[in-house]
Amino acid sequence: MSKVMRFSREYKPVSTVVNVNNVKIGGKFFAIAAGPCAIESPEQYIETAKIVKKAGANIIRGSVFKPRTSPYSFQGLGREGLKLIKDLGEDLDIATVTEVMDPRDIKITANHVDIIQIGARNMQNYDLLKEASKSDVPIILKRGLSATIDEWLYAAEYLMVEGNENIILCERGIRTFSTTTRNTLDLSIIPLLKMRTHLPIIVDPSHATGNRDLIAPVSKAAIVSNADGILIEVHYNPDAAKCDGAQSLPPEMFFELIEQIKPILELEKKLVTGTTMNLEEVRRRINYVDEDIIDLIANRINLVPALIEIKSKNAIPVYQPERERQLSEKYLRLAKENDISPELIQKIFNLIITEMRSLQKQKIE
Amino acid sequence: MSKVMRFSREYKPVSTVVNVNNVKIGGKFFAIAAGPCAIESPEQYIETAKIVKKAGANIIRGSVFKPRTSPYSFQGLGREGLKLIKDLGEDLDIATVTEVMDPRDIKITANHVDIIQIGARNMQNYDLLKEASKSDVPIILKRGLSATIDEWLYAAEYLMVEGNENIILCERGIRTFSTTTRNTLDLSIIPLLKMRTHLPIIVDPSHATGNRDLIAPVSKAAIVSNADGILIEVHYNPDAAKCDGAQSLPPEMFFELIEQIKPILELEKKLVTGTTMNLEEVRRRINYVDEDIIDLIANRINLVPALIEIKSKNAIPVYQPERERQLSEKYLRLAKENDISPELIQKIFNLIITEMRSLQKQKIE
Amino acid sequence: MSKVMRFSREYKPVSTVVNVNNVKIGGKFFAIAAGPCAIESPEQYIETAKIVKKAGANIIRGSVFKPRTSPYSFQGLGREGLKLIKDLGEDLDIATVTEVMDPRDIKITANHVDIIQIGARNMQNYDLLKEASKSDVPIILKRGLSATIDEWLYAAEYLMVEGNENIILCERGIRTFSTTTRNTLDLSIIPLLKMRTHLPIIVDPSHATGNRDLIAPVSKAAIVSNADGILIEVHYNPDAAKCDGAQSLPPEMFFELIEQIKPILELEKKLVTGTTMNLEEVRRRINYVDEDIIDLIANRINLVPALIEIKSKNAIPVYQPERERQLSEKYLRLAKENDISPELIQKIFNLIITEMRSLQKQKIE
Amino acid sequence: MSKVMRFSREYKPVSTVVNVNNVKIGGKFFAIAAGPCAIESPEQYIETAKIVKKAGANIIRGSVFKPRTSPYSFQGLGREGLKLIKDLGEDLDIATVTEVMDPRDIKITANHVDIIQIGARNMQNYDLLKEASKSDVPIILKRGLSATIDEWLYAAEYLMVEGNENIILCERGIRTFSTTTRNTLDLSIIPLLKMRTHLPIIVDPSHATGNRDLIAPVSKAAIVSNADGILIEVHYNPDAAKCDGAQSLPPEMFFELIEQIKPILELEKKLVTGTTMNLEEVRRRINYVDEDIIDLIANRINLVPALIEIKSKNAIPVYQPERERQLSEKYLRLAKENDISPELIQKIFNLIITEMRSLQKQKIE
Repeated sequence: MSKVMRFSREYKPVSTVVNVNNVKIGGKFFAIAAGPCAIESPEQYIETAKIVKKAGANIIRGSVFKPRTSPYSFQGLGREGLKLIKDLGEDLDIATVTEVMDPRDIKITANHVDIIQIGARNMQNYDLLKEASKSDVPIILKRGLSATIDEWLYAAEYLMVEGNENIILCERGIRTFSTTTRNTLDLSIIPLLKMRTHLPIIVDPSHATGNRDLIAPVSKAAIVSNADGILIEVHYNPDAAKCDGAQSLPPEMFFELIEQIKPILELEKKLVTGTTMNLEEVRRRINYVDEDIIDLIANRINLVPALIEIKSKNAIPVYQPERERQLSEKYLRLAKENDISPELIQKIFNLIITEMRSLQKQKIE
Repeated sequence: MSKVMRFSREYKPVSTVVNVNNVKIGGKFFAIAAGPCAIESPEQYIETAKIVKKAGANIIRGSVFKPRTSPYSFQGLGREGLKLIKDLGEDLDIATVTEVMDPRDIKITANHVDIIQIGARNMQNYDLLKEASKSDVPIILKRGLSATIDEWLYAAEYLMVEGNENIILCERGIRTFSTTTRNTLDLSIIPLLKMRTHLPIIVDPSHATGNRDLIAPVSKAAIVSNADGILIEVHYNPDAAKCDGAQSLPPEMFFELIEQIKPILELEKKLVTGTTMNLEEVRRRINYVDEDIIDLIANRINLVPALIEIKSKNAIPVYQPERERQLSEKYLRLAKENDISPELIQKIFNLIITEMRSLQKQKIE
Repeated sequence: MSKVMRFSREYKPVSTVVNVNNVKIGGKFFAIAAGPCAIESPEQYIETAKIVKKAGANIIRGSVFKPRTSPYSFQGLGREGLKLIKDLGEDLDIATVTEVMDPRDIKITANHVDIIQIGARNMQNYDLLKEASKSDVPIILKRGLSATIDEWLYAAEYLMVEGNENIILCERGIRTFSTTTRNTLDLSIIPLLKMRTHLPIIVDPSHATGNRDLIAPVSKAAIVSNADGILIEVHYNPDAAKCDGAQSLPPEMFFELIEQIKPILELEKKLVTGTTMNLEEVRRRINYVDEDIIDLIANRINLVPALIEIKSKNAIPVYQPERERQLSEKYLRLAKENDISPELIQKIFNLIITEMRSLQKQKIE
Repeated sequence: MSKVMRFSREYKPVSTVVNVNNVKIGGKFFAIAAGPCAIESPEQYIETAKIVKKAGANIIRGSVFKPRTSPYSFQGLGREGLKLIKDLGEDLDIATVTEVMDPRDIKITANHVDIIQIGARNMQNYDLLKEASKSDVPIILKRGLSATIDEWLYAAEYLMVEGNENIILCERGIRTFSTTTRNTLDLSIIPLLKMRTHLPIIVDPSHATGNRDLIAPVSKAAIVSNADGILIEVHYNPDAAKCDGAQSLPPEMFFELIEQIKPILELEKKLVTGTTMNLEEVRRRINYVDEDIIDLIANRINLVPALIEIKSKNAIPVYQPERERQLSEKYLRLAKENDISPELIQKIFNLIITEMRSLQKQKIE
């Protein structure tokens, strides 16, 4: 096909950053969407939302239209629930996302939430896609249970034909022979997708695994695979959940998850926007940073034996003025780049280097 | 089934650490096995091995018995090639692994290599497993293309019935409807497997993806999923490879891979044993650590605005002696735990804290 | 779940026979639905419909709403095309079926066609199912590409909650690792489904295989697997088809298909209702029946050598009056059951038996 | 690949007919292999063999080497059991088949059985294939659980490289997401395979479905899909079977199966060689043929109303001498072709035609 597709890097080489209600998704911005599978009651939704916001989520999920296998299962609050979402978004000043399944619900939903989600079962519900494409609201498009990459991207194209570029792809596992996990998460495709499309891609570890014990490692794997966000089911009381209880995180596990993914996000230089911290959180963060600083200093100092062995063997003097001058310049540059005091940095490294030099001399002499 | 399986945590709660030729696999020890798919010639094998060893691999892979789809494709050097492997292991002082497919080749192979590999196609070749179980050589058992977790673990049990506990499982992707990657890597099962079995589990990103551009992100995802190692195809000239050229890394990409996974390994506190560093590498390591130290200090100092806002709003004094005392104690403890000078750490944090206090005062006053 | 599902045999033990416009589907009635994938023009639709009707189809298929992977592919004639279907159904006095994808199109479509089809991609488009359930038009519900039997049956339940029992399930292949055929037809489930549900089940060999050379054997396999009908893509000029040309049968192949499945339908005692024959067809049918009659008589007479051997060995007389009396009674009963002259049958078998007796005597004496 | 493969129609256009111990497999010859999964004891094997032979099987199956998922399950009688198979083949004068898994067992097994089976798990056990290729015994090669057609055919090529052309492919279901049946039988590929290869292809409904209630419809579907045989698990007491009891047929169900497939085999003009009939069977066969004769006569006579309508409408006389002359010639020819008395046939059809003419006249006049 010779037509240039709107989802392609050929059409738009730069990665799309979706911007919604203070939250950025894509490029270096990582989204943490969390909340209950279904909105069951105002209390359940609002309490869970407060918890996930506090923990560090920047988008609240929660559905009022639920695709349930059986017609006799809880089908969601329906349109009645939309006002709840709108109010919550305004009260907590946080972005919201909810699923739509019926083309007749697109317009009213777009007026009440920040992001619309199109679920796996509806990935090729083309009339829904066409109706959604007339809206300009950001859309999360989940991959169908057995959709190929092409089918998925072409479904995204349906959403983009009218000019909406705020499309977020969501990998949520495919159906395979393996029943160890609820679905089989197809993470390896993310780097490949990134080559083909400028659209952000998030991952849903909850539906992919169906097992709350796997959410943390899978979320970390999503980050290092270059995903642009995660979508996590959290319930303030999973045992009482009307759907997907087994894969929903209770509050304390969601807090833990955030702690576990933070260092990976930092390592991968991914930023989470739109969250705020209280004193306790800042202090927790300081503690965490301090531990890392000490760890790294120890790491540096523990290189002394290796240096001693190499320098003795090759008769290299302990003090290497040229090397230290180079390091010094580098510290200066890095301090400036990071907008912190060069003197502070210089003093700190002087302390470290002096310590290391003295340790080397003790051993060598 | 009421029988306690040897692979299970019930049978042995502590994670097995396989020990072979200075290399540890399992627990906190991470293995990096690399080398060509097939040994094509002494030169190709030895040159590739030297490269991957230098880059940081601690196990050399390379097969002399090759399972090829067509009988008319290159079938490997056969038993003739085994001496090459033995010589290389001794010359480079490195652990070696090679695949065996025929029960009649188990004994002779075990005499020439450090680790035997049983491939995906032979995962349920029970006579091969039974023969291998009589040996005490460590064995990598790859998951079959469509094997369930139970089938895989029971295949491992076949290897363990005679008492050999040095079994390493290897996830290499399963066959699904998706053809975007050669196979679909089933990473989410690793944390689950870890709950059921004490055996180490490594990941083969090369066969899982069939695409050299995906090796780095998939390797990183394997590490954060708690895998105990990776198995990578490297060829000193992939374009000339007799098999699997497209998924083999050229030397420079393998060097890059190692650089990319090192920080993840550190973050996950995984150690790679059996490798040595030269001065250049130690210095590269120091540079890398220094950057991280500065990054973290900047990170700490950049929390000043948040502190100012919170403290002004709540009328909290800048100086909090009790908090500083607590921190001080903590630094002392951490320094001791890390076996570095407490005075050094105290001095460094004094500098940082003083700087932050002074920055806060400037703004508040 | 303790609730008795409407699709189940528990709810309704007798097989449902869907009755629509002279056509019966289910029980001993077999449906042959055929026609183009998409209605492209009045000429293409009407000409193809005439051909398939003449060949022996009793339902005409053809879609005006097309689910296409790409938004830039032909999307169907839309609502404009519905009148074409209604007119054709009336002009040819034949039942019609067309696909609906949008809940907003259910009502108008139900006013124009005899049967509504819900496609594989929409099997879990629950708002579409709910809207369709309000209608009382018969509905073909295709199995989703990766739907389990339970998911499929529960989707049927959505259609039945308002009381519509005219639901026809359609197996059309599932998505697996195998790409030899477009999908993998899951025929073995039909006998199993028949145990669980009273609903008729038809098979779509065109989408299952994507290959016109496989339509005939797969259709035959569907019949002996106890399917209640087939859904076949036919195009009066497949090379010019706007979609699915490769799997569409050209007219002559559809005629051939009907000839090939007729004997299987007879063997399985399946009736096709709502078709008419011309003199040529009646004669073709007579010829075909005559050949079978002769074949069977030859078959009976050729048992003589076996009878001779057994009777000689065991000294059994050739003439067995008791046996002949039993046979005679049986012929009488069968003639009555079939509503044909008992004298005729008696005379015919007298001839055959006399011939066989005489052949036996020649050999034995 | 430009090399002409030995399995291909290009290499050998005519379908291979495997000839073993009076049994023909391929072309118009259909094989019915039946027996227990595992040989558990002489009694169980011999009694089951006698039953399946009597019912109409022409090959006895039964394994002494069993690939079992768990090392603690019954592993088969091993080499000790081979003599049992040889004795049984000689005593019952019937062809035998057994599975081999270890290359070291090929030679001794080939000396004891008529056909060797290579199981699904060993389809790509290349050293086993190479060893088997040195033998000239016919080999059944089962498709791997997730093998593509190419992988399967190339595995057959491994068996053929030394000149053995007596290779029989066996489709036994593939592993997919669906767990309704044990595996998903991939029947649609058989007609496709027949275009590519001259080798016979049989079907294993027992492993494909894992459910004895599905064996009959699946066997019938296999026949109309042009398979060359079926491989059925039968046990004289399935409840006591050491493996695969749930999918094994008890004797009475196997007898029923044979009755059900016979008319399909006749319709498809497939012959089963190497079986004999007793008086009871011949009589059962006569009864069955008689019913069909009457059914067809009724079928012919019931065309009278259609003839009346057409002839009245178009003013065609009831008696059509030219048509009757043509029919008469045809009867003569067919009688000769079938080697039965032309007078008999002429008399029978005179009776039928006279009856039909008289019925037409009654109505028209």
